[in-house]
Amino acid sequence: MHTLDGSVVRDQGVTAPLGFRAAGMAAGIKASGRPDLALVFNEGPDYTAAGVFTRNKVKAAPVQWSQQVLTTGRLRAVVLNSGGANACTGPDGFGDTHATAEAVASALSNWGTETGAIEVAVCSTGLIGDRLPMDKLLPGVTAIVRDMAGGLSGGTDAAHAIMTTDTVPKQVAVHHTAGWNVGGMAKGAGMLAPSLATMLVVITTDAKVDAAALDSALRAATARTFDRLDVDGSCSTNDTVLLLSSGASDIEPDADAFAAAVFAACDDLAEQLMADAEGATKRILVTVTGAHSDDDAVTVARTVARDSLVKTALFGSDPNWGRVLAAVGMAPVELDPDAITIDFNGHVVSRNGCGVAGAREVDLSGTDIVVTVDLAVGSGRATIRTTDLSHGYVEENSAYSS
Amino acid sequence: MHTLDGSVVRDQGVTAPLGFRAAGMAAGIKASGRPDLALVFNEGPDYTAAGVFTRNKVKAAPVQWSQQVLTTGRLRAVVLNSGGANACTGPDGFGDTHATAEAVASALSNWGTETGAIEVAVCSTGLIGDRLPMDKLLPGVTAIVRDMAGGLSGGTDAAHAIMTTDTVPKQVAVHHTAGWNVGGMAKGAGMLAPSLATMLVVITTDAKVDAAALDSALRAATARTFDRLDVDGSCSTNDTVLLLSSGASDIEPDADAFAAAVFAACDDLAEQLMADAEGATKRILVTVTGAHSDDDAVTVARTVARDSLVKTALFGSDPNWGRVLAAVGMAPVELDPDAITIDFNGHVVSRNGCGVAGAREVDLSGTDIVVTVDLAVGSGRATIRTTDLSHGYVEENSAYSS
Repeated sequence: MHTLDGSVVRDQGVTAPLGFRAAGMAAGIKASGRPDLALVFNEGPDYTAAGVFTRNKVKAAPVQWSQQVLTTGRLRAVVLNSGGANACTGPDGFGDTHATAEAVASALSNWGTETGAIEVAVCSTGLIGDRLPMDKLLPGVTAIVRDMAGGLSGGTDAAHAIMTTDTVPKQVAVHHTAGWNVGGMAKGAGMLAPSLATMLVVITTDAKVDAAALDSALRAATARTFDRLDVDGSCSTNDTVLLLSSGASDIEPDADAFAAAVFAACDDLAEQLMADAEGATKRILVTVTGAHSDDDAVTVARTVARDSLVKTALFGSDPNWGRVLAAVGMAPVELDPDAITIDFNGHVVSRNGCGVAGAREVDLSGTDIVVTVDLAVGSGRATIRTTDLSHGYVEENSAYSS
Repeated sequence: MHTLDGSVVRDQGVTAPLGFRAAGMAAGIKASGRPDLALVFNEGPDYTAAGVFTRNKVKAAPVQWSQQVLTTGRLRAVVLNSGGANACTGPDGFGDTHATAEAVASALSNWGTETGAIEVAVCSTGLIGDRLPMDKLLPGVTAIVRDMAGGLSGGTDAAHAIMTTDTVPKQVAVHHTAGWNVGGMAKGAGMLAPSLATMLVVITTDAKVDAAALDSALRAATARTFDRLDVDGSCSTNDTVLLLSSGASDIEPDADAFAAAVFAACDDLAEQLMADAEGATKRILVTVTGAHSDDDAVTVARTVARDSLVKTALFGSDPNWGRVLAAVGMAPVELDPDAITIDFNGHVVSRNGCGVAGAREVDLSGTDIVVTVDLAVGSGRATIRTTDLSHGYVEENSAYSS
């Protein structure tokens, strides 16, 4: 991985790069009256774009639409709503997404930028199964195009408008020393969790990068960041990560440097998503080393990170390494149970498959817990970010339909 | 599946068949002083036996021992302890298991039945990672052989002594009209959950059945009962299911009738395990129909049964069918999202991938919830038993090392 040559800041988002405007507003989609509609607009001169989408076979209408749109490798705008996922809504729901893209294209054309619906990606998040209130959404689209602002405030407004159970907006900007920039915003509380907890991410850049290079940088970055954030093993019907380039800096970046900047932006947003996960009281890194391959390491780390008994033990600050070892033993990879070493926060708690003296006294009372599992059969390694399984998680996901 | 020709009762256990004695006692392994040692003894004349064990690659010492013993297809006795899993304890822990089997063999030989350690299976359950207090366990073994009783009380004492977080002992007996019997006991609170929640099952019969037929009946029964009980997706280091035949009825059963009786005993014990699962407030059956194959149906049902968002919604009595559909979409099988029908307690809530009117008003406030998912692409079907994800589950698994 190329080292990042630049700085990462969190108080700037999608409008940090040149050539982007954004806005956020309350269109009345949410009954609460909170902001629920966002727009990210690319002023050009380039309009290259790439996207990655949920692997769930049940895909929401906006995902089906945006996947089609992205086959062109080109985007002029992204419209995002909270307050409804528009998932499992059938052909009528797909018609609503199409109508939303048409409305954005029409409003942008009226505003002076000739735009087609095929240049507009749509993202939605909220409860699965209900139709969107189009009587609120379509007038909102007309209004939000008028509200679009350059500068940083438009990006911040957009980051607020996509929040659901998020407690804070999530933004990031990377300023590369060569003069080009990457910006981004994300929502999601609980990684890849259906309904309310969908993950939506929009990344922007003013570097001049063609669609194929955007696609490869985005796939490489998401595979090592969002794909390795695993709060509850669920994967939403609506998860979407988009990357848009305006080329407005007029600088063609080194490919490795660009990939490193996109990775840094995604990595920082993934960190922010973990920290704000539904009901989490612990931020947990599960690192697996010594696997036969990096893929094996991911598999083992994910198995540990998803284990309810590990997650409840860590909620209780209990250094219960036996549950970690038992979870490792269920991972579908080749391993030698008698060679495994487990470490909590830098203290070895189990070596060669047996506990070590003092293991039950390791202090896990802090917010951050690092679990390291050395399989000692190879050199593959990977880290998964996760959280604990707390009363708050149960409360948030049982107390109301979400 | 052959229909069961006989009766199933729950107040009798491993001593219901002829030719078995059992006992349970407090040997001082548990700090609480509660019963923690059990013995099941086969008086013969036959000693055929079979076993199935955890699929976890991290196997406790007693599992490693009992797997070796079972290669002979013969067992004279099973000794079981709660209060310690003897898992992840290395060669010394294996030595403890071996010493336990030797002590049982020696005590039985002194009592008048010449027995070798190779005829004694060992099962342990409790916290992973600690050595067993052999100074308590070995004298206990000598004492329990003296305590062995025929009749039903010995079986009931044994069923009590293997309990950990179980709130009730679990026993079953099947009396076949042809004159032979099957009996059984189980412990486990939370299916296949490491440490405290290990599942241990001993099934006995007085039917004359050779080891190969025992093995095939046991594997067929466990595949459709214990393997389809999935409380939290975890699989213990110690899970063990044993089947012993005394042949004392002197009746050779019809193979199908015997398989049906073993299935009925396992199915009833699985039902009892689900009802007593840690922190559960709901008993949930997830049935998948219309899959390409029964295996696909199991995969989909298991994916739904393990989904934390589905389990928390059902804890909240929330008919959130969108979460079920999203979970189905993550199952690694071929399916058509637009053909799926979902039913809660007999009410269709989603048809062809869309919600139906009134779906959000279905009453799930009762203890039993039946979720049926029709994939409509084939004729495969399967049912998984599970429970909700409750505050009680989090409490029980976080509040102390277990």
